[in-house]
Amino acid sequence: MTKATLALLIHGGTENWSPARWKARFDAVCADRPVHLLPDAALDPAEVRYAAVWKPQPGELAGFANLRVIFNLGAGVDALIADPTLPKLPLVRVAVDDLTKRMTEYVVLHVLAHHRQERYLRDSQRDRRWAPKTQWPASALSVGIMGLGNLGADSALALKQLGFRVSGWSRSAKHIPSIDCFHGEDGLKPFLGRTNILVCLLPLTGATRHILNRKLFAMLDRTSPLGAPVLINAGRGGLQNEAELLDCLNDGTLGAATLDVFETEPLPQDSPFWSQANVTLTPHNAADTDPDAISHYVADQIARHESGQPLHNVVDMARGY
Amino acid sequence: MTKATLALLIHGGTENWSPARWKARFDAVCADRPVHLLPDAALDPAEVRYAAVWKPQPGELAGFANLRVIFNLGAGVDALIADPTLPKLPLVRVAVDDLTKRMTEYVVLHVLAHHRQERYLRDSQRDRRWAPKTQWPASALSVGIMGLGNLGADSALALKQLGFRVSGWSRSAKHIPSIDCFHGEDGLKPFLGRTNILVCLLPLTGATRHILNRKLFAMLDRTSPLGAPVLINAGRGGLQNEAELLDCLNDGTLGAATLDVFETEPLPQDSPFWSQANVTLTPHNAADTDPDAISHYVADQIARHESGQPLHNVVDMARGY
Repeated sequence: MTKATLALLIHGGTENWSPARWKARFDAVCADRPVHLLPDAALDPAEVRYAAVWKPQPGELAGFANLRVIFNLGAGVDALIADPTLPKLPLVRVAVDDLTKRMTEYVVLHVLAHHRQERYLRDSQRDRRWAPKTQWPASALSVGIMGLGNLGADSALALKQLGFRVSGWSRSAKHIPSIDCFHGEDGLKPFLGRTNILVCLLPLTGATRHILNRKLFAMLDRTSPLGAPVLINAGRGGLQNEAELLDCLNDGTLGAATLDVFETEPLPQDSPFWSQANVTLTPHNAADTDPDAISHYVADQIARHESGQPLHNVVDMARGY
Repeated sequence: MTKATLALLIHGGTENWSPARWKARFDAVCADRPVHLLPDAALDPAEVRYAAVWKPQPGELAGFANLRVIFNLGAGVDALIADPTLPKLPLVRVAVDDLTKRMTEYVVLHVLAHHRQERYLRDSQRDRRWAPKTQWPASALSVGIMGLGNLGADSALALKQLGFRVSGWSRSAKHIPSIDCFHGEDGLKPFLGRTNILVCLLPLTGATRHILNRKLFAMLDRTSPLGAPVLINAGRGGLQNEAELLDCLNDGTLGAATLDVFETEPLPQDSPFWSQANVTLTPHNAADTDPDAISHYVADQIARHESGQPLHNVVDMARGY
């Protein structure tokens, strides 16, 4: 018996995870299951039972009458959910160790860079100045993680291991050993009031859009050796009010920011963020998805589904993540 | 009974660990023990029983007839040992958690910066280029730590935790769980042959001077996604042959280096290292010594000594560390 067909609908990506590379990986891990890269004129849409997607255009998933499950090849599903034509089917987001560990690399790198005064040290090198400044230990700073899913929890523990004081905030109550966890509306103020470096890994939903705004930044602690607090946003651009963020970076409400995500991506050529001296900017590459790890993950989930077991990491459409 | 006198002989340091600050800390932790900051014309040299030193000039420790123990306020003792007038007394080096953790911060920051292609990303931001490159996971790189004392072992474990493959090399055999440990002359070639990012935390001795040279760099592995291997030296400047290091950075034998230490410090204004594009340079601040932690450490050791217990971390003069 032929296995049910998996269709891949993939836009963008670097050369190393081109649609062709994804196809090759899925062919390798899906054994005798037909895998088609869309668009494919030779494919009968009625044959498609599963779809694995990366940045599909609105409407592209309509028209597959027998589609059963949609797999998103990344962690964030906000763009998919915003598509009103998205078929009302289980939507599975990726939660693989590989992606989690990459995000932790990013968070640890950029927390350490702020903590260790890298901007000052790069300027000193450029100016040929041998001028060490007083350096405080990690234990002098409190890092606050917004969003305590797989990503946030792993980053929190890695930072704790390095000696930082770490707390976390999430919508609903979480418990992570050795991390001070706050939650909900009421928990936000005490969480921010102790935070020197704010790391945002929240999903983008109606409730979190523009949560990173002047009012929130003003509640961060300014009494650490770092002085003005620092923002690291590796969640989604829509989480930040960019006009207020820029103002706060210019008036000292924030001392610096590391931004991997923006409201418009690619970031427009004329964006002031490019040349903002206290901004470290990366092109939404904090946690690339790895075709090897993710194709295995999707193939395993399909096998689970076909043997009657429940899918993992199905998005709660009401909650938005 | 008056306690035996501790003399402090301290040169240099940033404002936060000025001689006056060291004196205040030692006064606080040494209870009723007399603590003198040298030079002190009012102090009878015969009274001095203990000396805690930071970058003393050659000869400055001679002339204290009743000196019993010398404490160095940092981890590296090469400059002290090189002073032929150094009294033949127990020399204690600092091994406090605070210093170890600071070095680990430095090593993790700079390994991650190379791994995550930070130089490319900073150049991209400067040029307003939104151009993510393929990023490999930490597990694609092998970090090799030379020197497996307190510092090297702690860095190795932190890197392992982040997903890097980690091996280590030391003069004599060491065992660190989960780290592939090599040692001695015979172990050097296989250690280097698997290493993509070489982190040097060796002590400077007759045996290690200029150990970082072209011949060694040429033995590093070039087959990782990083391409040409990377050097991070946070040990001592004397460990590196600087002419060969520069040549290797220019001819591609090394792809990049992070250097905290130099043969001459402060690094001379006309040094080519300042403007070498593939060098990240820091002003010997990888692991600052913290007066609070270290003054406690010295006071505890003096108390141990006076109660007849052995001193910890006494330097082996023949070995040189």
